[in-house]
Amino acid sequence: MSEIYRASTTAPVNIAVIKYWGKRDPKLNLPTNSSLSVTLSQADLRTHTTASCSSTYPKEDTLLLNGSPQDVSGARTQACFRELRALRKQLEDSNSSLSRLSELPLRIVSENNFPTAAGLASSAAGFAALVRAIANLYELPSSPTDLSRIARQGSGSACRSLFGGYVGWEQGSATDGSDSVAFQVAPASHWPNMRAVILVVSAAKKGVSSTTGMQTTVATSSLFAARANETVPRRMAEMQKAIQEKDFEAFGKVTMMDSNSFHATCLDTYPPIFYLNDVSRAAIKVVESINAAAGKIIAAYTFDAGPNAVVYYLEENEKEVAGLFKAAIGEKDGWKCERGEKVEANGANLEKIKEEAGVAVELLKDGVSRVILTGVGEGPVKTGETLIDEKGEPIL
Amino acid sequence: MSEIYRASTTAPVNIAVIKYWGKRDPKLNLPTNSSLSVTLSQADLRTHTTASCSSTYPKEDTLLLNGSPQDVSGARTQACFRELRALRKQLEDSNSSLSRLSELPLRIVSENNFPTAAGLASSAAGFAALVRAIANLYELPSSPTDLSRIARQGSGSACRSLFGGYVGWEQGSATDGSDSVAFQVAPASHWPNMRAVILVVSAAKKGVSSTTGMQTTVATSSLFAARANETVPRRMAEMQKAIQEKDFEAFGKVTMMDSNSFHATCLDTYPPIFYLNDVSRAAIKVVESINAAAGKIIAAYTFDAGPNAVVYYLEENEKEVAGLFKAAIGEKDGWKCERGEKVEANGANLEKIKEEAGVAVELLKDGVSRVILTGVGEGPVKTGETLIDEKGEPIL
Repeated sequence: MSEIYRASTTAPVNIAVIKYWGKRDPKLNLPTNSSLSVTLSQADLRTHTTASCSSTYPKEDTLLLNGSPQDVSGARTQACFRELRALRKQLEDSNSSLSRLSELPLRIVSENNFPTAAGLASSAAGFAALVRAIANLYELPSSPTDLSRIARQGSGSACRSLFGGYVGWEQGSATDGSDSVAFQVAPASHWPNMRAVILVVSAAKKGVSSTTGMQTTVATSSLFAARANETVPRRMAEMQKAIQEKDFEAFGKVTMMDSNSFHATCLDTYPPIFYLNDVSRAAIKVVESINAAAGKIIAAYTFDAGPNAVVYYLEENEKEVAGLFKAAIGEKDGWKCERGEKVEANGANLEKIKEEAGVAVELLKDGVSRVILTGVGEGPVKTGETLIDEKGEPIL
Repeated sequence: MSEIYRASTTAPVNIAVIKYWGKRDPKLNLPTNSSLSVTLSQADLRTHTTASCSSTYPKEDTLLLNGSPQDVSGARTQACFRELRALRKQLEDSNSSLSRLSELPLRIVSENNFPTAAGLASSAAGFAALVRAIANLYELPSSPTDLSRIARQGSGSACRSLFGGYVGWEQGSATDGSDSVAFQVAPASHWPNMRAVILVVSAAKKGVSSTTGMQTTVATSSLFAARANETVPRRMAEMQKAIQEKDFEAFGKVTMMDSNSFHATCLDTYPPIFYLNDVSRAAIKVVESINAAAGKIIAAYTFDAGPNAVVYYLEENEKEVAGLFKAAIGEKDGWKCERGEKVEANGANLEKIKEEAGVAVELLKDGVSRVILTGVGEGPVKTGETLIDEKGEPIL
């Protein structure tokens, strides 16, 4: 009986504080500007992926995500498979004792530990896990940097999920994308008390996809060039300094300004793209009130291509930030877990904030369907827990 | 008995299609970019002002607006009074037969024919009428251009209300503001079939004032310079060409893009300024659907510093644009007037649009409190109708 080769990993979600928006090369996912993100804890949000290959499998590569077969014929997934196989083939060609895994069909099984309904961009964790799992399967000596170059071709922001902690993505300038890779600004241990509360907003309808949206912005926004060429390069430097110095006020201010800048270029797109709705704006208002009450920036909002708010804060301000939201939003999925139970609802501060942000508090209460509490975390982790059994069958 | 000198005028509201946002000199109201507006018909929206002066009046200048005494001690009103008195004094100094009106206290009475609750920026019509009425009182030979230079110091956009039709405001470069004046791009008669429907959105709370907002934008938005220095100069040229050629598609596209660009710089302000809400976005969506159904741009939205939508269209498309809104929004103040009764509710098109914009139509129906139907109109008109009687008393 032929062997079933298997390897498994988990990979994290990341939420950018300097946003990726705009491609200079849509095929290679080469961006128009560098970006920077915080890798979030896999205890809360992660993709778990097992990659396997065997001569016993039917010829076609397959991918099962949360129990549903996925189309792997798209150019992006194919690019990842092709690049990883090429690296394996190099190994095999230089060492004839190695099994020729590069010639075998791939069977991949993946699971997210967070509900798809949460509307969180899962493609970053998904492609990072896919690339990392196959690299493990092939026993590639590739560094996370090398793998980030491959994962980027699957989904741009996936390249940042190959590292833990605080992660940059250097836009690069080479036409083949060889220098467009992720790098670690600082490990999670450098600034471990960074936390995030994600306010999941019930949206009536999905907005414009980010792939379509960003290309329309590049083509039509007259303000976009200023963002990509001037604003972001300056803020990338400011943000790295803020992280090095663990300066939350600088981190928070740049985070909020960059989110606003990104959404401003969406609004300047023709036709305009709106990801923020009245509930998102209410979250912004409440964060502003939290900071006003504290007399400094202790909470920082950021929004991806959707209405969900991600609010960063430091552990020591948990009561002032997450506790305020707990009091404001009330009983919702997410407060009931171990982590959520620990957050102390801050009713006293809420009363003060209601004076000037009462309407916003009501909007949040009605519009937020669940919360996710998380924090900075590690990069992909190899795991013995497999999603494919020794016969090659998915474990569901 | 001493004489009561009186003169009266009406002046129009204008709604910009290239927005004024940002001052290079807040004292003189000198803008960071040129702008362009459509003067709206005074049958629908106007300020009526009577200026008078008399030696029998108490020493202080006074202004009554809609029956309420206004503070005239502010630098802006004072600048208008000072400049107009100086021009009158020049006349008096060169012709000793003239009464020395420049030395007499001013009593001004003003009325708007539209509800303050509509949230329409009334300061443009207000200062244009004030300046024009006093110029009439003083029998100044000043041209509308000269008066626009004075009205600008009262309220920037007021300078554009000194002319009818399609009106530009050249930003100028002189530090004393001498070349920052309004000019007529084309009279109303050049393109008389331009119409507008104003959707008045019930806002829970007034947003950031435009004076405060624009200065915060100049100080904090990293995208603002690109708008002021590159985008607007290009669009000023495109817009003037569109008006000269009566090209509604070009007019409409630039109008919508410029509104979006302006609100994008508001969002890029720190802290961000939001004037558009979910109802405003619904109006944008419905305009997009109207244009998609027509296969070309026949409706163009624009938003000032508030959530109200102004939708421009041509008379010949009234059924497709105003008629669609009439069917969508249903019974509201504004459809009941003579003008409104003439608009045919377009239920057939509404049904088609509901398929892709059903949520937006519902939001509009709930969120629009009244509509105002109007169109391009003339500049200030001298009137014999006075708001001050022969004894100098206000006629209320």
